[in-house]
Amino acid sequence: MSFPKVGKLYLSEVSNYFDPHGIYYLGPEGSFSHQAVSALSGLKVPVKTISEVFDKISNSTMGLVPVENSLEGPVNETLDNLFTRDGIYVNASLEIEVNLVLAANQDLSVIKRIYSHPHAIAEAGKRLKELGDFEIVQVESTSKAAKLASVEVNAAALCSEFAARLYGLNILERNLTDRGNVTRFFVVSNRLTTSGERTVLFFTVPDVPGSLYNVLREFYKRRVNVKMIYSRPLRRLIWNYYFYLEFEGSIDEFTPLIDDLKKVTQEVKVKGSYTTILSPS
Amino acid sequence: MSFPKVGKLYLSEVSNYFDPHGIYYLGPEGSFSHQAVSALSGLKVPVKTISEVFDKISNSTMGLVPVENSLEGPVNETLDNLFTRDGIYVNASLEIEVNLVLAANQDLSVIKRIYSHPHAIAEAGKRLKELGDFEIVQVESTSKAAKLASVEVNAAALCSEFAARLYGLNILERNLTDRGNVTRFFVVSNRLTTSGERTVLFFTVPDVPGSLYNVLREFYKRRVNVKMIYSRPLRRLIWNYYFYLEFEGSIDEFTPLIDDLKKVTQEVKVKGSYTTILSPS
Repeated sequence: MSFPKVGKLYLSEVSNYFDPHGIYYLGPEGSFSHQAVSALSGLKVPVKTISEVFDKISNSTMGLVPVENSLEGPVNETLDNLFTRDGIYVNASLEIEVNLVLAANQDLSVIKRIYSHPHAIAEAGKRLKELGDFEIVQVESTSKAAKLASVEVNAAALCSEFAARLYGLNILERNLTDRGNVTRFFVVSNRLTTSGERTVLFFTVPDVPGSLYNVLREFYKRRVNVKMIYSRPLRRLIWNYYFYLEFEGSIDEFTPLIDDLKKVTQEVKVKGSYTTILSPS
Repeated sequence: MSFPKVGKLYLSEVSNYFDPHGIYYLGPEGSFSHQAVSALSGLKVPVKTISEVFDKISNSTMGLVPVENSLEGPVNETLDNLFTRDGIYVNASLEIEVNLVLAANQDLSVIKRIYSHPHAIAEAGKRLKELGDFEIVQVESTSKAAKLASVEVNAAALCSEFAARLYGLNILERNLTDRGNVTRFFVVSNRLTTSGERTVLFFTVPDVPGSLYNVLREFYKRRVNVKMIYSRPLRRLIWNYYFYLEFEGSIDEFTPLIDDLKKVTQEVKVKGSYTTILSPS
């Protein structure tokens, strides 16, 4: 199966393919995962954990999971689930800018209390102090904050613009955080896609000098660009690691490379080729 | 300065060297960091964040920071601080087994409530259910749990054996979690150590095919074993990464290797050679 890049129209084709049994994503409603999954048409179903998204993958469903944030790095729960669960593949990628706004259904002049998640408060705390003297109240998610601000007098939420819109709030202030905070999501399913811009794979190597070097040589020989490499604990064996790697190009283009990787690794798990179908404007 | 391995005796030498102005560690008292730092003699000072430990490093102080857990992977805040702060080096490593016990100053038969941190509850939940029907109460740390259990009737704590001892609790049950959960800590200071079992360095490479391969070739040529490699977001430049690497051997042994790395990287930061001075028995 191939997922050609044709912009947003393409998204509805993908999800129609899997509908009507749902696209599972990490909730709650108003989360950044919800914002990303909203680019896809079809029934969206929030679940409570990333592992639960993986649990729900079947012949007629797909999932959307966060995989990496530009400031915080990889989402370990996603990498570990992709590595350990055979038969689940990466089909597409979506990027969402993690922007925070101050939102309320009242004017800034009457706001006394601001709700938000501790991480968001940490990021935007300096700018909030410049705006006035507020009581800052920590809640479990920025979407919960938006929900509270929508029903309480004199209260605002520090949340995403998406959550603000979802709860009918007006934007009081934008640009409360530094730019360059982007989260990447993967669309995952039980179908392997072999064409696309990038390919995702996992491998393990023996703990001897040159193991990783021998793997990277296979890419170097063919002038293939390794875009990302992460090592993660193997868990079943202490201080041993598996590697997550993304390279530029598709499985269809580089079948001999993948065959050669099998000779220089203990194990290779090819998780599919994908194209980025949504990026921040 | 060299830190030869002479077992626990050596620890007091190290800390006497830096005393009396303190060894800073991630609190609160009873934390796994506290357990690790207790292997060192001298004044120990708990602080609230890993970054604060780094803030406190001066000519007469040292710090102790968690760097990696065998199940969860690297501690990003430690890697980011080590990478961005020049003049702070790694001098030694300590490993602590993260074991959980059920502890109280009463018999199991009268326990109605168990306090613990959500992560610990998730890890040990299955075993706790086998032990009986308890009210499980989440608190912010396992050491806080031990403190509460020490003053409340009918209450126990799911905590480390170290925290249980600190608060004078009896161990009701051991082995509540799977084995192989070990956290590594680094002793850091503003002194570079050039001898030891392993060397820590950071580097950045251009985003072109073969960059990482060219770096690993320098190790391969000399049959030097790369023990760990992690990539982390560079933050100042989106989707760009820095690499954390540990190799077997010391700076003293491999000075020409380090000189050659400068030719194949954009930047190299050598953070010192270290020896593991405490491991789980």
